[in-house]
Amino acid sequence: VRRITLLTDFGTADGYVAAMKGVIASITPSAIIDDASHAIAPGDIAAAAWALAGYWRLYPRGTTHLVVIDPGVGSTRHPIAISADGHAFVGPDNGVFTHVLNEAGTWRAVVLENAAFLRRVVSPTFHGRDVFAPVAAHLAAGLYLGRLGTPLDEPVRLPLAPAAQEDAAARGVVVHTDTFGNLITNIPASWAVADARVQVAGRELPLVTAYSDVEPGALLVVEGSRGMLEVAVRDGSAADVLKVKPGERVVLAPATAQASAPRR
Amino acid sequence: VRRITLLTDFGTADGYVAAMKGVIASITPSAIIDDASHAIAPGDIAAAAWALAGYWRLYPRGTTHLVVIDPGVGSTRHPIAISADGHAFVGPDNGVFTHVLNEAGTWRAVVLENAAFLRRVVSPTFHGRDVFAPVAAHLAAGLYLGRLGTPLDEPVRLPLAPAAQEDAAARGVVVHTDTFGNLITNIPASWAVADARVQVAGRELPLVTAYSDVEPGALLVVEGSRGMLEVAVRDGSAADVLKVKPGERVVLAPATAQASAPRR
Amino acid sequence: VRRITLLTDFGTADGYVAAMKGVIASITPSAIIDDASHAIAPGDIAAAAWALAGYWRLYPRGTTHLVVIDPGVGSTRHPIAISADGHAFVGPDNGVFTHVLNEAGTWRAVVLENAAFLRRVVSPTFHGRDVFAPVAAHLAAGLYLGRLGTPLDEPVRLPLAPAAQEDAAARGVVVHTDTFGNLITNIPASWAVADARVQVAGRELPLVTAYSDVEPGALLVVEGSRGMLEVAVRDGSAADVLKVKPGERVVLAPATAQASAPRR
Repeated sequence: VRRITLLTDFGTADGYVAAMKGVIASITPSAIIDDASHAIAPGDIAAAAWALAGYWRLYPRGTTHLVVIDPGVGSTRHPIAISADGHAFVGPDNGVFTHVLNEAGTWRAVVLENAAFLRRVVSPTFHGRDVFAPVAAHLAAGLYLGRLGTPLDEPVRLPLAPAAQEDAAARGVVVHTDTFGNLITNIPASWAVADARVQVAGRELPLVTAYSDVEPGALLVVEGSRGMLEVAVRDGSAADVLKVKPGERVVLAPATAQASAPRR
Repeated sequence: VRRITLLTDFGTADGYVAAMKGVIASITPSAIIDDASHAIAPGDIAAAAWALAGYWRLYPRGTTHLVVIDPGVGSTRHPIAISADGHAFVGPDNGVFTHVLNEAGTWRAVVLENAAFLRRVVSPTFHGRDVFAPVAAHLAAGLYLGRLGTPLDEPVRLPLAPAAQEDAAARGVVVHTDTFGNLITNIPASWAVADARVQVAGRELPLVTAYSDVEPGALLVVEGSRGMLEVAVRDGSAADVLKVKPGERVVLAPATAQASAPRR
Repeated sequence: VRRITLLTDFGTADGYVAAMKGVIASITPSAIIDDASHAIAPGDIAAAAWALAGYWRLYPRGTTHLVVIDPGVGSTRHPIAISADGHAFVGPDNGVFTHVLNEAGTWRAVVLENAAFLRRVVSPTFHGRDVFAPVAAHLAAGLYLGRLGTPLDEPVRLPLAPAAQEDAAARGVVVHTDTFGNLITNIPASWAVADARVQVAGRELPLVTAYSDVEPGALLVVEGSRGMLEVAVRDGSAADVLKVKPGERVVLAPATAQASAPRR
């Protein structure tokens, strides 16, 4: 079984995603296509990169991950493919693969130049259909990456400032707001010591183990599913309550107040 | 072919659903994953239970149905698996399987306790990825339910008051509002006699056979696709017109006015 | 491998789509079901027809395309199946297959009358589950089209006025607004001559090759992915900026101003 995951900002209503699936099915009929998402906000490269970071490594080696968030389609940005830790990636060279490159043990990238693996006519507005889908289908069928084009030494990476530890405190930022309104930070949960608190948007919040450790509607901080501190509201939206967006500063520090819940 | 259906309230934009799919693909590479929905309103257990009730039995026996509407993740609610009429179910023990339990001929349930079938590290915030997805993958691969943990005698069921017949009338409620704004009730269409009318939100509405039996924009009552009476507006939304939500009382009774359309 | 594509206006939250998938899986367990979209606006036959036109031919021959945008369910509109250029189509006879019929080399259609290939009980409100899904599953399994019912000579087609060339100008309309707010017209890009401009909503816009040929936020006209002129805003929505809907008149003409960008 050859799987291809598909991540776009196309929505589905216009048939653009189905066009990509049709191209894949024509080239590699046995391919199983898993929709990752087509609901990325238009052109939100950082959000797509974050989403991809959460699933690619959970798939088995040999999976091909197709990512088409491509506001620069038709410009000089390169179409690329990457091989990383046994997974293949196809999409525009605009930073969507930042986390993959940062986290993979080994990788190599190529610019998609070999017309033999593209559609015969390439539209300047829809590389998803004419460039990326056919290349993904060929990779899923076992094509050797090197045949697609010439090596690319430095694919584009988004600048990601890591969280920093200073004395007893750590400083980071909100890096993603998810569908539930949870605010995911770049501060590793492993940095939290007993009695630590998180300061964000003028509030000081307790660290707990699970949402259910606080009352419904209350703010809290938990270790998120990728090991980072995450600000949440039980049965609610922290993004709505705190009016906070990605980039907001977050500080992890010992409690300043006397009454503080110990971290279990 | 082993199929797994997937129902969540995750949306797709954060990659959480794709993470679950990746876990499944790694454990049971040949599994076909059918997206049921990821658009359940956050934490709406009743809506998820209603949706599941409409499709699980239409799948062939041997299908595994994965349901992750899990506002209590990380609390003491049990993670469970159920075998019912040849189908397998995996999810939190919070009522999402109410209709399955109520309608199945035979069933048995277990609490997911055997760590051998979970991910090595289990996040307190994402059991979909770390508990439910791997268990579903193992069940799809043929794992015997009993190996997952100890039997659970009484999984949680939502309290569902049935409709009641009184003399010539029947009393029920709206149990679900669908995407089209149709109001699905719990009154069986088979209870309707000739000349019956439905009273809801201060209106008295005719029973017809199909939407096209009334003019565009008009209110009507039809037998819905699960055999229950359903209040609708032709080419419109009854929920918008009547401003009615689940729980609203509905009465089926003989027509009080003289002019009434006979039911065909 | 037998693929079935699925296009509806059902949304996914009610389980209606999953019910159709379950019916298909029960009849043809090996079928792979590709979601095209379930986000067509309720009852928008023209939008569904447009979406379908963009993907059906990209799939391999032998694919079955299931389309359920069916505001007339339960009325006298026919349920039909069509064979066109080696692809199969199933859905209501309401115009959703307009472009397929207009563009296919050869086609034939039948009315779905043979109860042997439908579900035993057919709901008057959900032919997607009871009529169209089972027929699609049988076609995907290799059923001969003629066994489904009697021939239909003239399936319903939406009236589509083509663009017209007059002297140096061409007159057309916006036929679709996509998710990005791009306005797709019915004027072939091949009609554009050097120095041509597009007039729409009181503006005169330049033709360029790619979005990146103008500044972010600027209006432009490009050759869209199906070869038609398309009005867009770089990194924005032309539908929002111009407040234009399908049906809006569009004129392609030589530039009236002196300063005009040559088309590359």
